[in-house]
Amino acid sequence: MTETDKRYMALALKLAEQGAGWTSPNPMVGAVIVKDDQIIGQGYHARCGDLHAERAALKNCTADPAGATLYVTLEPCCHQGRQPPCTEAILKAGIARVVVGSPDPNPLVAGKGNRLLREHGVQVEEHVLQAQCDRLNRAFLKYISTGRPYVVMKYAMTMDGKIAAHTGASQWVTGEEARQHVQTLRHRHRAIMAGVGTVIADDPRLTCRLPGGRDPIRVVCDTHLRTPLTAQVVTTAGQTPTWIATCCADPERLAPYERAGCRMLVLPERDGHVDLNALMDCLGKQEIDSVLLEGGGTLNWSALDQGVVDAVMAYVAPKLFGGRTAKTPVEGRGVDAPAAAFPLKNTVITQIGADFLLESEVDRDVYRHH
Amino acid sequence: MTETDKRYMALALKLAEQGAGWTSPNPMVGAVIVKDDQIIGQGYHARCGDLHAERAALKNCTADPAGATLYVTLEPCCHQGRQPPCTEAILKAGIARVVVGSPDPNPLVAGKGNRLLREHGVQVEEHVLQAQCDRLNRAFLKYISTGRPYVVMKYAMTMDGKIAAHTGASQWVTGEEARQHVQTLRHRHRAIMAGVGTVIADDPRLTCRLPGGRDPIRVVCDTHLRTPLTAQVVTTAGQTPTWIATCCADPERLAPYERAGCRMLVLPERDGHVDLNALMDCLGKQEIDSVLLEGGGTLNWSALDQGVVDAVMAYVAPKLFGGRTAKTPVEGRGVDAPAAAFPLKNTVITQIGADFLLESEVDRDVYRHH
Repeated sequence: MTETDKRYMALALKLAEQGAGWTSPNPMVGAVIVKDDQIIGQGYHARCGDLHAERAALKNCTADPAGATLYVTLEPCCHQGRQPPCTEAILKAGIARVVVGSPDPNPLVAGKGNRLLREHGVQVEEHVLQAQCDRLNRAFLKYISTGRPYVVMKYAMTMDGKIAAHTGASQWVTGEEARQHVQTLRHRHRAIMAGVGTVIADDPRLTCRLPGGRDPIRVVCDTHLRTPLTAQVVTTAGQTPTWIATCCADPERLAPYERAGCRMLVLPERDGHVDLNALMDCLGKQEIDSVLLEGGGTLNWSALDQGVVDAVMAYVAPKLFGGRTAKTPVEGRGVDAPAAAFPLKNTVITQIGADFLLESEVDRDVYRHH
Repeated sequence: MTETDKRYMALALKLAEQGAGWTSPNPMVGAVIVKDDQIIGQGYHARCGDLHAERAALKNCTADPAGATLYVTLEPCCHQGRQPPCTEAILKAGIARVVVGSPDPNPLVAGKGNRLLREHGVQVEEHVLQAQCDRLNRAFLKYISTGRPYVVMKYAMTMDGKIAAHTGASQWVTGEEARQHVQTLRHRHRAIMAGVGTVIADDPRLTCRLPGGRDPIRVVCDTHLRTPLTAQVVTTAGQTPTWIATCCADPERLAPYERAGCRMLVLPERDGHVDLNALMDCLGKQEIDSVLLEGGGTLNWSALDQGVVDAVMAYVAPKLFGGRTAKTPVEGRGVDAPAAAFPLKNTVITQIGADFLLESEVDRDVYRHH
């Protein structure tokens, strides 16, 4: 691959990003069409149900795309889904060369789009900036290959590991910019998950406060069904979906929540909590491809211990609270020894205002040992 | 100042660094002598009692320094101390121009060295790379201007803020490289401070395990004199100094420690702990210019709360322990509200092996509000 190829693919990536929050359960995809070293068309998948990136770029072409090169962040589809196959449109437009970032992650179709194009005489170059393209759609990649959502555990802590002062006061740990950044996370994830403890203590709305942002579906983990009927997540369930995951199967206790507009997910219990693997299966079946876990220490530990966490986003504020009894981001029982820790990998640190965001992936191999 | 001046000053800084750990209570200083765009002499203050950097560089000159430029990270001294004044040697050598990094931090003498040189016709340029020069000697700068040591609170924690698993097991939180890096800190600080809780729980040696490294003086904070006479810090007090800071003034209880070679610092009590401000005054009088605080959460909180902490070095390991009862780096009572937090500033993040080192300065202004 040439530097030129990488440059156009980087542009396609930027275009793909513009669909963030709206394409789910589809991936974000961007496309650029280049002819005689000129960009003649650009497009991206803007929203689930809308045109795919390739067709959007072809539609926007300012010159005849015959003989041109198409850069696309994800292998073009060759099957009929919500939209007709993109390979068909590419062949019809007479595109001569297709440069692809990520292969189709669906193991049943991977490579078929590229093969079909080659069989029709199109030159196909693969794996250009694949790491970046894969990273953009890591939630989609997990969802399409496992049927379960990608779960990001998010918390904000001081540099001595506290998420609140010993009094419970937690407004605010981080600064304005970091809190704004959390709102973009809420926009980008299809669901937000919190525990009943947080709902009782803080009565949060768990909505996205970005102008034009998309509210995630609110999922409350509530083993024994203790969510107050007066909680904001219940009283506003008519405007923004609230799903309550519980082990309580008593129809009489479920009924008032259902009348308030909540969807009740009755699930098996595991270690005294809602079985989170069963919950993730259930969310996946509802086309939830990504979950932002804004739990307290108890739910965070359960999620980690039950093996459903894929990534951690830790906002770290340059300040110290102290406090032997102050809350920390992951509590519960905890591991018995350092060697049994949950290891993280691929940590990336970004400064956001005065704070730092540490993003890591959970090393999934470890779950085999726990 | 020119780019050339900055380049030679950067070299002088590198030379100064080579004295790290050995110059105390003197500052680290480096010097470079340049004539006709050629380096003709280099030197640094290697150890307290040895030649100052300027004289070392002059001694190493490979050509006549008359008419040359001298780059020196700290304003040359003009008074008789452990060594004769450097200004005398500079004038005698016929140096034509002196480029200075930091001014002499001693408010009583600051500027006098430069003025004396100018009065003798030497051209003096000041403040070249001053921020870096000041940073190198921040411990000395505090010590010389307040008479108290610069205190660095060091801890190693997981990304969920734990310094040990809930069982107390803490070997190891960080990897080999980070632990090695801590040894360089022990070498660079004149004293290491721990609490009696750590001594009882871990029986540490608190020495520097670097080949050729310098052991810090071991200071144990032990309000009620509970240090076991069998603790390693006591039994090895003959080889490496151990000072025990206590509120116990009973000669009969102090005597066995003194017989073992420990130095007993009897101090007033404050909030149920050794008065740490009194301890810092005491250490400063003993020419201790820097203290590495390797406390547990209780001592760390007391030090922070009593206003003696200047900087924080937090090693953060990319892993999660969880655990509601697992220890965190700063415990004690803690602040009551986020707005009362101890703010940190000038945070610098460095990757060390798989871990991250977050270095911050405590914003001293805050102590006015606590």
